[in-house]
Amino acid sequence: MRPATEDPSPETSLEALVTGTFGVDASVELTSLLPVLVRDVEEVDWRLNEVLGSKYAQLTEAARYAVSAGGKRVRPLLMSATHRALGAESTAPIRSLAAAFQLIHTATLVHDDVIDRAETRRGRPSVLRAFGPPLAIVAGDYLFVRAFELAAEYPSGIILRCGESCADLAEGEVLQEASRFDLTSGREHYFRVVERKTAAIIAAALASVGEIVGAPASIVDGLDAYGRSLGIAFQIRDDLLDVYGDPDLMGKPLFNDLREGNPTVVSLEAYSRLDGARQAEFERLFRLRRKRPRHLLRLKELTDATDTETVVAREAELWAERAVRSLDPLPPGPYRRLLERLAHGAAERRY
Amino acid sequence: MRPATEDPSPETSLEALVTGTFGVDASVELTSLLPVLVRDVEEVDWRLNEVLGSKYAQLTEAARYAVSAGGKRVRPLLMSATHRALGAESTAPIRSLAAAFQLIHTATLVHDDVIDRAETRRGRPSVLRAFGPPLAIVAGDYLFVRAFELAAEYPSGIILRCGESCADLAEGEVLQEASRFDLTSGREHYFRVVERKTAAIIAAALASVGEIVGAPASIVDGLDAYGRSLGIAFQIRDDLLDVYGDPDLMGKPLFNDLREGNPTVVSLEAYSRLDGARQAEFERLFRLRRKRPRHLLRLKELTDATDTETVVAREAELWAERAVRSLDPLPPGPYRRLLERLAHGAAERRY
Repeated sequence: MRPATEDPSPETSLEALVTGTFGVDASVELTSLLPVLVRDVEEVDWRLNEVLGSKYAQLTEAARYAVSAGGKRVRPLLMSATHRALGAESTAPIRSLAAAFQLIHTATLVHDDVIDRAETRRGRPSVLRAFGPPLAIVAGDYLFVRAFELAAEYPSGIILRCGESCADLAEGEVLQEASRFDLTSGREHYFRVVERKTAAIIAAALASVGEIVGAPASIVDGLDAYGRSLGIAFQIRDDLLDVYGDPDLMGKPLFNDLREGNPTVVSLEAYSRLDGARQAEFERLFRLRRKRPRHLLRLKELTDATDTETVVAREAELWAERAVRSLDPLPPGPYRRLLERLAHGAAERRY
Repeated sequence: MRPATEDPSPETSLEALVTGTFGVDASVELTSLLPVLVRDVEEVDWRLNEVLGSKYAQLTEAARYAVSAGGKRVRPLLMSATHRALGAESTAPIRSLAAAFQLIHTATLVHDDVIDRAETRRGRPSVLRAFGPPLAIVAGDYLFVRAFELAAEYPSGIILRCGESCADLAEGEVLQEASRFDLTSGREHYFRVVERKTAAIIAAALASVGEIVGAPASIVDGLDAYGRSLGIAFQIRDDLLDVYGDPDLMGKPLFNDLREGNPTVVSLEAYSRLDGARQAEFERLFRLRRKRPRHLLRLKELTDATDTETVVAREAELWAERAVRSLDPLPPGPYRRLLERLAHGAAERRY
């Protein structure tokens, strides 16, 4: 695990991503693809730093901080692997778009942290904490703006796909707010949130790669479906790790969703599996606006008393399998096998 | 003055805008242009409501609320008048772009109100107040996204011009935050803020209109300069009205900038014109994080003791004159005369 206060080199973090985060086991075939993908993601990072570098010193600082703190480069990695699975030999055609999607993702995280008053993000102070609310709000806006400038290099169909997924993101956030502290909102609502908040943008990113290389509609649709299912698998695993993960590995404390009152597939499953008195206790504790550690531990204890962990882990796997099936229209080859493995990795990762 | 809780019809508000806000006197020639411009701005409003109407009920509600509360349609009016001054007979070619700029302006106001914790906006509860901070942040993002989708209808040069002015906006906000409660930040800093926060986006909007009709570079540059100078005149007048305006006419209380500690051309001028003890008192009061009414009234009293009101009003006029001179490359005609009159109106308006 990388130390929380240091920027890892892209290579270290990407290896961690592929072998750790995504749980890819070190098969010789897939390991040999690593250096290529590391380079691809580095190139996206260069493009990204290029557009953030400007006359705006303080804004540049906050934006770069957000970008360096904000992620595992999951989206650029998936876009690059998809691009190569479709036969591309260089990232050049998708570089700006991958940077755009990474910036949109980062912008959302920055604004999410303002909304949730989150103090940390991946083991470091959040932008909110490091720069204060005004700059965090403005830096998020700035990241959105730079993302759209990058997207402007592409045909309007791509820009619109990108824009629609951003509108989905905003909608997901609103839907999530609407179900805060409410376990009766149910699984259907949860999946609407996840589709919009997590899955839509990955689907749009990968479908766009298909469009850029001029792939037939069956492949573009397949990539959209793959991205959507992988995104859902990824989010379900995220929700599970929030209760059953290793906080040191993840660089953040556990129980954030329980604390914030965000119903997830985990709390919804536990709630539905508990009986009368314990179900009522679970709901009462979940509704508390300010939970003490003992409340959180009791919620975990109640969850442990059910089969939730196993059931939810299996559910993530089912979405991974669905993602894999969506790749059927793609030509076979090592990068397609990597995409398949990444889908399973999203559902199995430990951080 | 329109009642604070009702939406005025576009016609009423536009007449108020042209004859009142912008101080255009009812010369027969200019009055005859009104119905045309009213229709143009209505058409932009339709386009705007079209893109905000979506499956996203709550977001649509917040976004439409922001749009209806958020403004005097200054940008669409100026764009439409410019377009017609260049010989256009229909708004169709600029409609989406005018809607985009109006949405960007609105998004900024929504986020500004979150940053400033503003309770009211143009006599109504702010989006922050009416919908809460999470939805206000997300609704602002959503407005930005829809704006860029609209901009995506245009060539990438236009999108980039639009994006750059958004980056300027973000920078302006950051610069403004940096000088909060600091009167020693000076006039140069103030003008850097105003150029970015107010002037850049008007300049970009009008220069884009020039580009869309294929005007020569001299006209595009002239429009850019006109927009920039008019924006500065507009902002200087805004700053003056915050101290010397009629709160009933403006639909908001006075002394916001003094209360928030934003140095403006008014407070900077007063500060520079006061002598030793009174200058120190002015600065001490200005620096107070929580000002009581008596502090605000004393700051006004100290300002009154100088020539600030006259000097600043004259400064706004000088920028209006500069704006008018920038129109030299444009063909003569009634719409150009209207643009000239609007520049003076921006510097003379009472709300």
